[in-house]
Amino acid sequence: MRKLAVLALGGNALIREGQSGTIEEQEQNVTDTLENILFLLEEDYHLVICHGNGPQVGNLLMKNDAGEYVYGLPQMPLDVCVADTQGEIGYMIERMMLNLLRKYKINKDVVTLVSQVEVDKDDPAFQDPQKRVGKTYNKEEADKLSGEKGWIFKEEVKTEGGWRRVVPSPLPKSIMNEDVIEVLARQGNIVITSGGGGIPVYIDEENRVRPTEAVIDKDMASSLLAAKIKADEFYILTDVPYVYINYKQPGEKKLDPLDVADAKKYLARGMFSEGSMAPKIKAAVQFVEKGGEKSVITEARLLKDKTYGTKIIAAYE
Amino acid sequence: MRKLAVLALGGNALIREGQSGTIEEQEQNVTDTLENILFLLEEDYHLVICHGNGPQVGNLLMKNDAGEYVYGLPQMPLDVCVADTQGEIGYMIERMMLNLLRKYKINKDVVTLVSQVEVDKDDPAFQDPQKRVGKTYNKEEADKLSGEKGWIFKEEVKTEGGWRRVVPSPLPKSIMNEDVIEVLARQGNIVITSGGGGIPVYIDEENRVRPTEAVIDKDMASSLLAAKIKADEFYILTDVPYVYINYKQPGEKKLDPLDVADAKKYLARGMFSEGSMAPKIKAAVQFVEKGGEKSVITEARLLKDKTYGTKIIAAYE
Repeated sequence: MRKLAVLALGGNALIREGQSGTIEEQEQNVTDTLENILFLLEEDYHLVICHGNGPQVGNLLMKNDAGEYVYGLPQMPLDVCVADTQGEIGYMIERMMLNLLRKYKINKDVVTLVSQVEVDKDDPAFQDPQKRVGKTYNKEEADKLSGEKGWIFKEEVKTEGGWRRVVPSPLPKSIMNEDVIEVLARQGNIVITSGGGGIPVYIDEENRVRPTEAVIDKDMASSLLAAKIKADEFYILTDVPYVYINYKQPGEKKLDPLDVADAKKYLARGMFSEGSMAPKIKAAVQFVEKGGEKSVITEARLLKDKTYGTKIIAAYE
Repeated sequence: MRKLAVLALGGNALIREGQSGTIEEQEQNVTDTLENILFLLEEDYHLVICHGNGPQVGNLLMKNDAGEYVYGLPQMPLDVCVADTQGEIGYMIERMMLNLLRKYKINKDVVTLVSQVEVDKDDPAFQDPQKRVGKTYNKEEADKLSGEKGWIFKEEVKTEGGWRRVVPSPLPKSIMNEDVIEVLARQGNIVITSGGGGIPVYIDEENRVRPTEAVIDKDMASSLLAAKIKADEFYILTDVPYVYINYKQPGEKKLDPLDVADAKKYLARGMFSEGSMAPKIKAAVQFVEKGGEKSVITEARLLKDKTYGTKIIAAYE
């Protein structure tokens, strides 16, 4: 049976540090990233591609703000903005992938699905919103928006100051249309889905699917999807070749392989940075604990040379 | 064999005349429209839903403009904006449909696909851009944008004046992923696709899929899709119960049924308004000429009572 791999592309697959995010930059970045994963098709893998949306949804939230300010246009809520970016980024990845398939004469369809991801309304994240989204406001603007829209703000202490809106980041509970995604992928289509962690929704008391203004971690959503569709391998593509402990500090140590017990021990000790590597490790561990063969965390350009990357496995041999 | 119907929802299915397009308004409008088509599921039809995006892409273009003006954010090209609205509107229709299915205990999946539609770069529309998009500018602003971005402007003579960007509206040539759409629909999934007429792309000399800044008529794209996936019936849902000749003039006459020969005769004589009913008739005719059983043009709320609506058929009996 052919193997199924789920790949989670990080924000830097689309907009790199120091770029403003013009369409030309994004297209080139996506093409570069996809070139690096084509060998998986040569090795006969079925592929599902998930992606982040941080810079794009950030830009869209600012455009929403500017559109209200300049033209009085109604702002769209965060769930709708995530849906927008799924269309935008999904299309970009789909078209760039199609062009690579055409270039290398590989006959495959690429299908992009808009994806809702269910969260639990009782998730403790809703009591403690931590995820910063949108632009930085001054105190007066933040107070005004807080009154008008009920937004919650936190001060930016580490950076240049100001106030940013915070939203909850609940755990994904289920991926809508996971059966359709699995069937499409196993039929040989490259499926792009669960962009930006998915559009966050929950089921209310009356059994309705309701939106919620939250952000789901894209690695956690991709990892859950990978487990649900019984993928064999789960790849988190980011901007470091390996996972390290004591990263850029004395005693820095590259981890490979890393088993679930060690990963949990290091997580418990806070040895991975909270905003970046810790959620990736949690996502990698989740996949293996739910039955996946291995998770791999590395850079796209190093993927083909399989000596690179931190492989997260159930237990050392 | 179960029948397959393709429905094209007009702009008023989402944002009604006089509404600014808040999310609450759009959700309510979509729910009302979808309630009216549920009987097709009771009658055991497979369903594909296409939709317009006029008001939404209009708002997004203005937000792009405001985002550049206020924050210096790069504007996204028109193809990317269409992709955004496919995510946004597709998600809205998908979630509202899911809630109706849950309410009436109908067990079906709803799948939204991001859709590229291929056009011909030699389409004469590229030599004569006519489709007005985005906000109205004054002469000075229009000249500036024309120089900076190469946009083409036309004066608004019928309305309050000012200048608007015009883009080509080429004919759709093929719908990407039409096979996947057909399979998903015939497996019993409700498929939402080809939003806003599809993201316009063309194949260049080097066999690459390239974007183009154009708008494809949503009824022509839906009709082509309906023919390609061998749908039995094609429904264009709009804001009049029937198609008329001499609409709101002396000699007004309701048309039903309307055969292809008569439809073409009236089209040739300019008896349908160019910006609204003529493209719908062309789309309805295209579907029947390509082998479809019938096209129907009417209001969503009148669909269930099958005495309403203009049925376009190959030939009178």
